[in-house]
Amino acid sequence: MSEAGLTRDAFLGGRVQAWQPAKGYRAGTDPVFLAAACPAETGETVLEMGCGVGVASLCLGARVEGLHITGVERQPAYADLARRNGLDVVEADLTALPQDLRARSFDHVMANPPYFAEGDGTPASDVGREGAFREDTPLSAWIDTARSRLKPKGWLTLIQLAERLPECLSALSSGFGSVAVLPVQSRAGRSAGRVLIRARKGGKAPFRLLAPFLVHEQPHHLSDGDDYTARAAAVLRDGASIDFQ
Amino acid sequence: MSEAGLTRDAFLGGRVQAWQPAKGYRAGTDPVFLAAACPAETGETVLEMGCGVGVASLCLGARVEGLHITGVERQPAYADLARRNGLDVVEADLTALPQDLRARSFDHVMANPPYFAEGDGTPASDVGREGAFREDTPLSAWIDTARSRLKPKGWLTLIQLAERLPECLSALSSGFGSVAVLPVQSRAGRSAGRVLIRARKGGKAPFRLLAPFLVHEQPHHLSDGDDYTARAAAVLRDGASIDFQ
Repeated sequence: MSEAGLTRDAFLGGRVQAWQPAKGYRAGTDPVFLAAACPAETGETVLEMGCGVGVASLCLGARVEGLHITGVERQPAYADLARRNGLDVVEADLTALPQDLRARSFDHVMANPPYFAEGDGTPASDVGREGAFREDTPLSAWIDTARSRLKPKGWLTLIQLAERLPECLSALSSGFGSVAVLPVQSRAGRSAGRVLIRARKGGKAPFRLLAPFLVHEQPHHLSDGDDYTARAAAVLRDGASIDFQ
Repeated sequence: MSEAGLTRDAFLGGRVQAWQPAKGYRAGTDPVFLAAACPAETGETVLEMGCGVGVASLCLGARVEGLHITGVERQPAYADLARRNGLDVVEADLTALPQDLRARSFDHVMANPPYFAEGDGTPASDVGREGAFREDTPLSAWIDTARSRLKPKGWLTLIQLAERLPECLSALSSGFGSVAVLPVQSRAGRSAGRVLIRARKGGKAPFRLLAPFLVHEQPHHLSDGDDYTARAAAVLRDGASIDFQ
Protein backbone atom coordinates (compact mmCIF):
# COMPACT_ATOMS: atom_id res chain seq x y z
CA MET A 1 0.00 0.00 0.00
CA SER A 2 1.39 3.41 -0.82
CA GLU A 3 0.63 6.99 -1.63
CA ALA A 4 2.89 9.75 -2.88
CA GLY A 5 6.21 9.43 -1.09
CA LEU A 6 4.86 7.05 1.54
CA THR A 7 4.56 3.32 2.08
CA ARG A 8 2.43 1.49 4.59
CA ASP A 9 4.41 -1.33 6.13
CA ALA A 10 3.54 -4.26 8.32
CA PHE A 11 5.28 -5.23 11.58
CA LEU A 12 4.65 -8.06 14.04
CA GLY A 13 3.20 -10.30 11.34
CA GLY A 14 0.72 -7.62 10.29
CA ARG A 15 -0.54 -6.69 13.75
CA VAL A 16 1.05 -3.27 13.33
CA GLN A 17 0.74 -1.15 10.18
CA ALA A 18 2.71 2.08 9.89
CA TRP A 19 3.04 4.78 7.29
CA GLN A 20 6.65 5.62 6.58
CA PRO A 21 8.40 7.86 4.08
CA ALA A 22 9.43 5.77 1.05
CA LYS A 23 12.81 7.47 1.32
CA GLY A 24 14.49 8.57 4.51
CA TYR A 25 14.62 6.76 7.84
CA ARG A 26 12.68 3.52 7.58
CA ALA A 27 12.09 1.29 10.56
CA GLY A 28 13.74 -2.12 10.39
CA THR A 29 14.09 -4.63 13.18
CA ASP A 30 15.66 -2.28 15.77
CA PRO A 31 12.48 -0.47 16.90
CA VAL A 32 10.70 -3.84 17.06
CA PHE A 33 13.44 -5.22 19.35
CA LEU A 34 13.31 -2.03 21.42
CA ALA A 35 9.56 -2.41 21.96
CA ALA A 36 9.98 -6.09 22.83
CA ALA A 37 12.58 -5.24 25.48
CA CYS A 38 10.56 -2.55 27.26
CA PRO A 39 9.10 -4.17 30.42
CA ALA A 40 5.96 -2.01 30.50
CA GLU A 41 2.80 -3.50 32.02
CA THR A 42 -0.88 -2.72 31.58
CA GLY A 43 -1.86 0.67 32.93
CA GLU A 44 1.66 2.12 32.93
CA THR A 45 2.88 5.25 31.20
CA VAL A 46 5.57 5.19 28.52
CA LEU A 47 7.53 7.96 26.84
CA GLU A 48 9.32 7.21 23.59
CA MET A 49 12.05 9.75 22.87
CA GLY A 50 12.70 10.35 19.15
CA CYS A 51 9.81 8.15 18.08
CA GLY A 52 10.08 8.77 14.32
CA VAL A 53 6.89 7.46 12.70
CA GLY A 54 6.19 5.53 15.89
CA VAL A 55 6.99 1.90 15.05
CA ALA A 56 8.44 1.02 18.48
CA SER A 57 5.51 2.61 20.34
CA LEU A 58 3.00 0.92 18.05
CA CYS A 59 4.65 -2.47 18.57
CA LEU A 60 4.72 -1.96 22.32
CA GLY A 61 1.05 -0.96 22.30
CA ALA A 62 0.21 -4.05 20.28
CA ARG A 63 2.01 -6.32 22.77
CA VAL A 64 0.80 -4.79 26.04
CA GLU A 65 -2.80 -3.66 26.42
CA GLY A 66 -3.83 -0.50 28.21
CA LEU A 67 -0.58 1.45 28.10
CA HIS A 68 -0.49 5.24 27.98
CA ILE A 69 2.18 5.92 25.38
CA THR A 70 3.51 9.35 24.40
CA GLY A 71 6.04 9.94 21.64
CA VAL A 72 8.37 12.88 21.25
CA GLU A 73 9.68 13.66 17.78
CA ARG A 74 11.58 16.70 16.60
CA GLN A 75 11.13 16.31 12.84
CA PRO A 76 7.64 17.55 11.83
CA ALA A 77 7.18 15.15 8.91
CA TYR A 78 7.86 12.13 11.16
CA ALA A 79 5.72 13.52 13.97
CA ASP A 80 2.84 13.96 11.50
CA LEU A 81 3.21 10.37 10.29
CA ALA A 82 3.36 9.09 13.85
CA ARG A 83 0.04 10.85 14.55
CA ARG A 84 -1.41 9.40 11.37
CA ASN A 85 -0.20 6.00 12.62
CA GLY A 86 -2.32 6.56 15.72
CA LEU A 87 0.27 7.69 18.23
CA ASP A 88 0.01 10.54 20.73
CA VAL A 89 2.96 12.72 19.71
CA VAL A 90 4.57 15.85 21.04
CA GLU A 91 6.61 17.63 18.41
CA ALA A 92 9.59 18.93 20.32
CA ASP A 93 13.32 18.78 20.79
CA LEU A 94 14.32 16.46 23.62
CA THR A 95 16.46 19.12 25.21
CA ALA A 96 13.61 21.67 25.18
CA LEU A 97 10.46 19.77 26.06
CA PRO A 98 7.30 21.87 26.47
CA GLN A 99 6.25 22.70 30.01
CA ASP A 100 3.27 20.32 30.12
CA LEU A 101 5.52 17.38 29.22
CA ARG A 102 8.15 18.49 31.72
CA ALA A 103 5.42 18.41 34.34
CA ARG A 104 4.80 14.70 33.69
CA SER A 105 6.76 11.63 34.73
CA PHE A 106 6.63 8.14 33.27
CA ASP A 107 6.97 4.54 34.38
CA HIS A 108 9.05 3.81 31.27
CA VAL A 109 11.15 5.70 28.79
CA MET A 110 12.42 4.04 25.63
CA ALA A 111 14.57 5.25 22.75
CA ASN A 112 16.44 4.22 19.66
CA PRO A 113 18.77 7.24 19.53
CA PRO A 114 20.78 8.12 16.40
CA TYR A 115 23.67 5.73 15.89
CA PHE A 116 26.28 8.12 14.60
CA ALA A 117 27.79 11.00 16.48
CA GLU A 118 28.03 14.34 14.78
CA GLY A 119 30.88 14.36 12.27
CA ASP A 120 31.14 10.56 12.01
CA GLY A 121 30.71 8.74 8.73
CA THR A 122 29.05 9.90 5.51
CA PRO A 123 25.99 12.12 5.78
CA ALA A 124 22.78 10.62 4.38
CA SER A 125 21.40 12.36 1.28
CA ASP A 126 17.94 12.53 2.85
CA VAL A 127 17.48 15.14 5.58
CA GLY A 128 15.01 13.05 7.59
CA ARG A 129 17.21 9.99 7.41
CA GLU A 130 20.20 12.11 8.36
CA GLY A 131 18.31 13.47 11.37
CA ALA A 132 17.34 9.98 12.47
CA PHE A 133 20.80 8.49 12.05
CA ARG A 134 23.08 11.26 13.13
CA GLU A 135 22.79 13.02 16.41
CA ASP A 136 23.05 16.68 17.03
CA THR A 137 21.72 15.99 20.50
CA PRO A 138 24.49 13.99 22.25
CA LEU A 139 23.62 10.56 23.60
CA SER A 140 24.22 11.82 27.14
CA ALA A 141 21.46 14.43 26.65
CA TRP A 142 19.01 11.66 25.69
CA ILE A 143 19.85 9.85 28.89
CA ASP A 144 19.61 13.08 30.91
CA THR A 145 16.12 13.67 29.54
CA ALA A 146 15.13 10.09 30.32
CA ARG A 147 16.36 10.49 33.90
CA SER A 148 14.36 13.69 34.31
CA ARG A 149 11.14 12.23 32.91
CA LEU A 150 11.23 8.86 34.69
CA LYS A 151 9.49 8.20 37.98
CA PRO A 152 11.71 6.88 40.78
CA LYS A 153 12.42 3.19 40.02
CA GLY A 154 11.18 3.72 36.44
CA TRP A 155 12.88 1.85 33.61
CA LEU A 156 14.81 3.17 30.65
CA THR A 157 15.12 0.86 27.63
CA LEU A 158 17.53 1.69 24.82
CA ILE A 159 18.83 0.16 21.63
CA GLN A 160 22.14 1.45 20.33
CA LEU A 161 25.20 0.41 18.34
CA ALA A 162 27.33 -1.99 20.37
CA GLU A 163 30.36 0.18 19.73
CA ARG A 164 28.72 2.97 21.72
CA LEU A 165 28.13 0.82 24.82
CA PRO A 166 30.90 2.52 26.85
CA GLU A 167 29.32 5.92 26.20
CA CYS A 168 25.89 4.60 27.22
CA LEU A 169 27.22 3.07 30.42
CA SER A 170 29.07 6.24 31.28
CA ALA A 171 25.92 8.35 30.85
CA LEU A 172 23.91 5.83 32.90
CA SER A 173 26.43 5.86 35.76
CA SER A 174 24.70 8.88 37.23
CA GLY A 175 21.21 8.31 38.60
CA PHE A 176 20.66 4.86 37.10
CA GLY A 177 21.45 1.38 38.39
CA SER A 178 20.38 -2.24 37.85
CA VAL A 179 21.77 -1.86 34.34
CA ALA A 180 21.52 -4.92 32.11
CA VAL A 181 22.99 -5.26 28.62
CA LEU A 182 21.65 -7.72 26.08
CA PRO A 183 24.03 -8.02 23.13
CA VAL A 184 22.15 -8.34 19.84
CA GLN A 185 24.29 -10.60 17.71
CA SER A 186 23.29 -11.15 14.10
CA ARG A 187 24.93 -14.57 13.85
CA ALA A 188 26.72 -17.02 16.14
CA GLY A 189 30.36 -16.13 16.75
CA ARG A 190 30.03 -12.55 15.52
CA SER A 191 30.56 -9.44 17.58
CA ALA A 192 27.36 -7.79 18.73
CA GLY A 193 26.07 -5.18 16.27
CA ARG A 194 23.58 -3.65 18.66
CA VAL A 195 22.98 -3.64 22.38
CA LEU A 196 19.64 -3.52 24.14
CA ILE A 197 20.09 -1.79 27.48
CA ARG A 198 17.77 -1.60 30.46
CA ALA A 199 18.51 0.69 33.39
CA ARG A 200 16.45 1.61 36.41
CA LYS A 201 16.31 5.10 37.83
CA GLY A 202 17.72 4.80 41.33
CA GLY A 203 18.26 1.05 40.81
CA LYS A 204 20.75 -0.73 43.07
CA ALA A 205 21.18 -4.18 41.53
CA PRO A 206 24.58 -5.08 40.04
CA PHE A 207 25.31 -4.62 36.35
CA ARG A 208 24.55 -7.70 34.23
CA LEU A 209 25.90 -8.72 30.84
CA LEU A 210 23.40 -11.18 29.42
CA ALA A 211 23.88 -14.01 26.95
CA PRO A 212 23.41 -12.60 23.45
CA PHE A 213 20.13 -12.39 21.60
CA LEU A 214 20.89 -14.22 18.36
CA VAL A 215 18.98 -12.96 15.33
CA HIS A 216 19.88 -15.37 12.52
CA GLU A 217 20.17 -19.13 12.68
CA GLN A 218 22.84 -19.70 10.06
CA PRO A 219 26.43 -18.79 10.90
CA HIS A 220 26.78 -17.15 7.47
CA HIS A 221 24.48 -15.20 5.22
CA LEU A 222 23.63 -17.87 2.66
CA SER A 223 20.58 -16.49 0.87
CA ASP A 224 18.01 -13.77 1.18
CA GLY A 225 15.65 -16.35 2.62
CA ASP A 226 14.56 -15.78 6.15
CA ASP A 227 16.63 -17.65 8.72
CA TYR A 228 15.57 -16.01 11.97
CA THR A 229 16.18 -17.92 15.15
CA ALA A 230 13.03 -19.07 16.92
CA ARG A 231 13.54 -16.36 19.52
CA ALA A 232 13.91 -13.59 16.90
CA ALA A 233 10.96 -14.88 14.87
CA ALA A 234 8.77 -14.91 17.98
CA VAL A 235 9.62 -11.26 18.58
CA LEU A 236 9.43 -10.03 14.98
CA ARG A 237 6.39 -11.99 13.80
CA ASP A 238 4.43 -12.92 16.88
CA GLY A 239 5.09 -9.88 19.06
CA ALA A 240 6.83 -11.78 21.87
CA SER A 241 8.70 -9.86 24.54
CA ILE A 242 12.46 -9.99 25.04
CA ASP A 243 13.12 -11.01 28.61
CA PHE A 244 16.29 -9.95 30.37
CA GLN A 245 16.89 -13.25 32.15
CA MET B 1 52.84 -32.92 45.64
CA SER B 2 52.89 -30.85 48.78
CA GLU B 3 54.89 -29.54 51.66
CA ALA B 4 53.79 -27.79 54.81
CA GLY B 5 51.02 -25.38 53.89
CA LEU B 6 51.70 -25.63 50.17
CA THR B 7 50.52 -27.63 47.20
CA ARG B 8 52.12 -27.91 43.80
CA ASP B 9 49.44 -27.75 41.12
CA ALA B 10 49.40 -28.41 37.42
CA PHE B 11 48.01 -26.07 34.75
CA LEU B 12 47.82 -26.39 30.95
CA GLY B 13 47.72 -30.15 31.10
CA GLY B 14 50.87 -30.27 33.23
CA ARG B 15 52.99 -27.88 31.20
CA VAL B 16 52.90 -25.44 34.09
CA GLN B 17 53.52 -26.42 37.72
CA ALA B 18 53.03 -23.86 40.45
CA TRP B 19 53.41 -23.84 44.21
CA GLN B 20 50.40 -22.31 45.90
CA PRO B 21 49.33 -21.94 49.51
CA ALA B 22 47.01 -24.80 50.43
CA LYS B 23 44.75 -22.19 51.99
CA GLY B 24 44.28 -18.67 50.72
CA TYR B 25 43.97 -17.44 47.19
CA ARG B 26 44.32 -20.38 44.82
CA ALA B 27 44.44 -19.97 41.07
CA GLY B 28 41.54 -21.46 39.17
CA THR B 29 40.67 -20.94 35.54
CA ASP B 30 40.71 -17.11 35.57
CA PRO B 31 44.49 -16.57 35.43
CA VAL B 32 44.71 -19.24 32.72
CA PHE B 33 42.11 -17.40 30.64
CA LEU B 34 43.90 -14.11 31.30
CA ALA B 35 47.19 -15.52 30.00
CA ALA B 36 45.45 -16.99 26.95
CA ALA B 37 43.93 -13.60 26.10
CA CYS B 38 47.18 -11.60 26.31
CA PRO B 39 48.36 -11.04 22.71
CA ALA B 40 52.09 -10.98 23.57
CA GLU B 41 54.55 -12.16 20.92
CA THR B 42 58.09 -13.52 21.13
CA GLY B 43 60.61 -10.95 22.30
CA GLU B 44 58.06 -8.61 23.89
CA THR B 45 57.95 -7.39 27.48
CA VAL B 46 55.05 -8.12 29.81
CA LEU B 47 54.16 -6.77 33.23
CA GLU B 48 51.68 -8.69 35.36
CA MET B 49 50.16 -6.53 38.06
CA GLY B 50 49.18 -8.40 41.21
CA CYS B 51 50.66 -11.66 39.99
CA GLY B 52 50.02 -13.72 43.14
CA VAL B 53 52.03 -16.95 42.85
CA GLY B 54 52.43 -16.24 39.14
CA VAL B 55 50.07 -18.67 37.41
CA ALA B 56 49.00 -16.27 34.63
CA SER B 57 52.60 -15.27 33.87
CA LEU B 58 53.76 -18.90 33.91
CA CYS B 59 50.96 -19.92 31.54
CA LEU B 60 51.77 -17.02 29.22
CA GLY B 61 55.46 -17.94 29.26
CA ALA B 62 54.57 -21.54 28.45
CA ARG B 63 52.47 -20.48 25.45
CA VAL B 64 54.77 -17.83 23.96
CA GLU B 65 58.52 -18.38 23.84
CA GLY B 66 61.05 -15.68 24.53
CA LEU B 67 58.94 -13.23 26.49
CA HIS B 68 60.40 -10.99 29.18
CA ILE B 69 57.84 -11.21 31.96
CA THR B 70 57.89 -9.26 35.22
CA GLY B 71 55.40 -9.74 38.02
CA VAL B 72 54.46 -7.24 40.71
CA GLU B 73 53.02 -8.58 43.94
CA ARG B 74 52.36 -6.75 47.19
CA GLN B 75 51.94 -9.73 49.51
CA PRO B 76 55.40 -11.11 50.46
CA ALA B 77 54.30 -14.74 50.82
CA TYR B 78 52.83 -14.76 47.31
CA ALA B 79 55.82 -12.88 45.86
CA ASP B 80 58.14 -15.50 47.41
CA LEU B 81 56.12 -18.35 45.91
CA ALA B 82 56.06 -16.64 42.52
CA ARG B 83 59.87 -16.47 42.66
CA ARG B 84 60.01 -20.11 43.67
CA ASN B 85 57.75 -20.82 40.69
CA GLY B 86 60.40 -19.26 38.48
CA LEU B 87 59.01 -15.80 37.92
CA ASP B 88 60.85 -12.48 38.03
CA VAL B 89 58.94 -10.63 40.75
CA VAL B 90 59.03 -7.15 42.20
CA GLU B 91 57.50 -7.02 45.67
CA ALA B 92 55.70 -3.71 45.71
CA ASP B 93 52.39 -1.93 45.92
CA LEU B 94 51.07 -0.99 42.50
CA THR B 95 50.52 2.57 43.56
CA ALA B 96 54.12 2.92 44.83
CA LEU B 97 56.32 1.07 42.34
CA PRO B 98 60.06 1.30 42.92
CA GLN B 99 61.95 3.79 40.79
CA ASP B 100 63.65 1.18 38.57
CA LEU B 101 60.28 -0.28 37.60
CA ARG B 102 58.83 3.18 37.04
CA ALA B 103 61.71 3.78 34.63
CA ARG B 104 60.59 0.84 32.46
CA SER B 105 57.79 0.50 29.97
CA PHE B 106 56.17 -2.66 28.62
CA ASP B 107 54.58 -3.95 25.44
CA HIS B 108 51.87 -5.65 27.51
CA VAL B 109 50.33 -5.32 30.93
CA MET B 110 47.96 -7.93 32.27
CA ALA B 111 46.03 -8.27 35.51
CA ASN B 112 43.39 -10.21 37.34
CA PRO B 113 42.52 -7.50 39.90
CA PRO B 114 40.54 -8.27 43.06
CA TYR B 115 36.88 -8.86 42.30
CA PHE B 116 35.31 -7.21 45.30
CA ALA B 117 35.48 -3.55 46.18
CA GLU B 118 36.34 -2.58 49.72
CA GLY B 119 33.35 -3.10 51.98
CA ASP B 120 31.51 -5.48 49.61
CA GLY B 121 30.56 -9.00 50.63
CA THR B 122 31.94 -11.13 53.43
CA PRO B 123 35.65 -10.90 54.25
CA ALA B 124 37.64 -14.08 53.68
CA SER B 125 39.04 -15.69 56.83
CA ASP B 126 42.49 -15.95 55.24
CA VAL B 127 44.44 -12.69 54.99
CA GLY B 128 46.15 -13.63 51.72
CA ARG B 129 42.92 -14.70 50.15
CA GLU B 130 41.28 -11.54 51.40
CA GLY B 131 44.06 -9.44 49.85
CA ALA B 132 43.67 -11.22 46.54
CA PHE B 133 39.89 -10.98 46.41
CA ARG B 134 39.20 -7.60 47.95
CA GLU B 135 40.79 -4.42 46.73
CA ASP B 136 42.17 -1.72 48.85
CA THR B 137 43.69 -0.33 45.69
CA PRO B 138 40.71 0.79 43.58
CA LEU B 139 40.31 -0.72 40.13
CA SER B 140 40.91 2.68 38.56
CA ALA B 141 44.37 2.80 40.20
CA TRP B 142 45.24 -0.55 38.58
CA ILE B 143 44.30 0.89 35.21
CA ASP B 144 46.23 4.11 35.92
CA THR B 145 49.35 2.07 36.70
CA ALA B 146 48.87 0.03 33.53
CA ARG B 147 48.59 3.21 31.47
CA SER B 148 51.78 4.59 33.00
CA ARG B 149 53.77 1.43 32.43
CA LEU B 150 52.61 0.64 28.88
CA LYS B 151 54.49 1.74 25.80
CA PRO B 152 52.44 3.76 23.29
CA LYS B 153 50.14 1.31 21.44
CA GLY B 154 50.83 -1.29 24.14
CA TRP B 155 48.06 -3.65 25.18
CA LEU B 156 46.34 -4.06 28.52
CA THR B 157 44.57 -7.38 29.15
CA LEU B 158 42.26 -7.78 32.15
CA ILE B 159 39.92 -10.34 33.61
CA GLN B 160 37.27 -9.07 35.98
CA LEU B 161 33.76 -9.79 37.23
CA ALA B 162 31.22 -8.97 34.52
CA GLU B 163 29.30 -6.85 36.99
CA ARG B 164 32.26 -4.47 37.16
CA LEU B 165 32.45 -3.93 33.40
CA PRO B 166 31.03 -0.38 33.59
CA GLU B 167 33.73 0.58 36.10
CA CYS B 168 36.44 -0.94 33.88
CA LEU B 169 35.19 0.87 30.78
CA SER B 170 34.99 4.13 32.66
CA ALA B 171 38.60 3.82 33.84
CA LEU B 172 39.71 2.85 30.32
CA SER B 173 37.98 5.85 28.73
CA SER B 174 41.04 7.96 29.45
CA GLY B 175 44.18 7.10 27.47
CA PHE B 176 42.96 3.76 26.10
CA GLY B 177 41.05 2.86 22.94
CA SER B 178 40.41 -0.15 20.69
CA VAL B 179 38.69 -1.72 23.68
CA ALA B 180 37.25 -5.19 23.15
CA VAL B 181 35.19 -7.15 25.66
CA LEU B 182 34.92 -10.93 25.57
CA PRO B 183 32.14 -12.12 27.89
CA VAL B 184 33.11 -15.33 29.70
CA GLN B 185 29.89 -17.27 30.05
CA SER B 186 29.93 -20.46 32.07
CA ARG B 187 27.01 -22.02 30.23
CA ALA B 188 24.79 -21.21 27.23
CA GLY B 189 22.02 -18.76 28.02
CA ARG B 190 23.59 -17.56 31.28
CA SER B 191 24.76 -14.04 32.02
CA ALA B 192 28.50 -13.58 31.77
CA GLY B 193 30.30 -14.22 35.06
CA ARG B 194 33.58 -12.69 33.96
CA VAL B 195 34.76 -10.41 31.22
CA LEU B 196 38.11 -10.53 29.46
CA ILE B 197 39.01 -7.03 28.33
CA ARG B 198 41.68 -5.85 25.93
CA ALA B 199 42.49 -2.18 25.52
CA ARG B 200 45.25 -0.43 23.63
CA LYS B 201 47.08 2.59 24.98
CA GLY B 202 46.30 5.39 22.52
CA GLY B 203 44.18 2.98 20.43
CA LYS B 204 41.62 4.48 18.07
CA ALA B 205 39.54 1.50 16.90
CA PRO B 206 35.86 1.36 17.93
CA PHE B 207 34.75 -0.57 20.99
CA ARG B 208 33.78 -4.18 20.28
CA LEU B 209 31.55 -6.54 22.23
CA LEU B 210 32.51 -10.04 21.13
CA ALA B 211 30.48 -13.22 21.05
CA PRO B 212 30.87 -14.95 24.44
CA PHE B 213 33.55 -17.44 25.33
CA LEU B 214 31.54 -20.42 26.53
CA VAL B 215 33.23 -22.52 29.21
CA HIS B 216 30.95 -25.51 29.75
CA GLU B 217 29.15 -27.54 27.12
CA GLN B 218 26.08 -28.56 29.10
CA PRO B 219 23.41 -25.95 29.74
CA HIS B 220 23.16 -27.15 33.36
CA HIS B 221 25.62 -28.44 35.90
CA LEU B 222 24.80 -32.14 35.80
CA SER B 223 27.79 -33.77 37.46
CA ASP B 224 31.29 -33.00 38.62
CA GLY B 225 32.54 -34.54 35.42
CA ASP B 226 34.40 -32.28 33.10
CA ASP B 227 32.25 -30.82 30.35
CA TYR B 228 34.44 -28.05 28.95
CA THR B 229 33.65 -26.80 25.48
CA ALA B 230 36.30 -27.62 22.88
CA ARG B 231 37.44 -24.00 22.96
CA ALA B 232 37.79 -23.94 26.76
CA ALA B 233 39.52 -27.32 26.83
CA ALA B 234 42.01 -26.13 24.20
CA VAL B 235 42.88 -23.16 26.41
CA LEU B 236 42.91 -24.93 29.78
CA ARG B 237 44.62 -28.19 28.75
CA ASP B 238 46.53 -27.46 25.59
CA GLY B 239 47.58 -23.88 26.21
CA ALA B 240 45.73 -22.40 23.23
CA SER B 241 45.32 -18.64 22.95
CA ILE B 242 42.00 -16.82 23.16
CA ASP B 243 41.61 -14.74 20.03
CA PHE B 244 39.55 -11.60 20.07
CA GLN B 245 37.95 -12.11 16.63
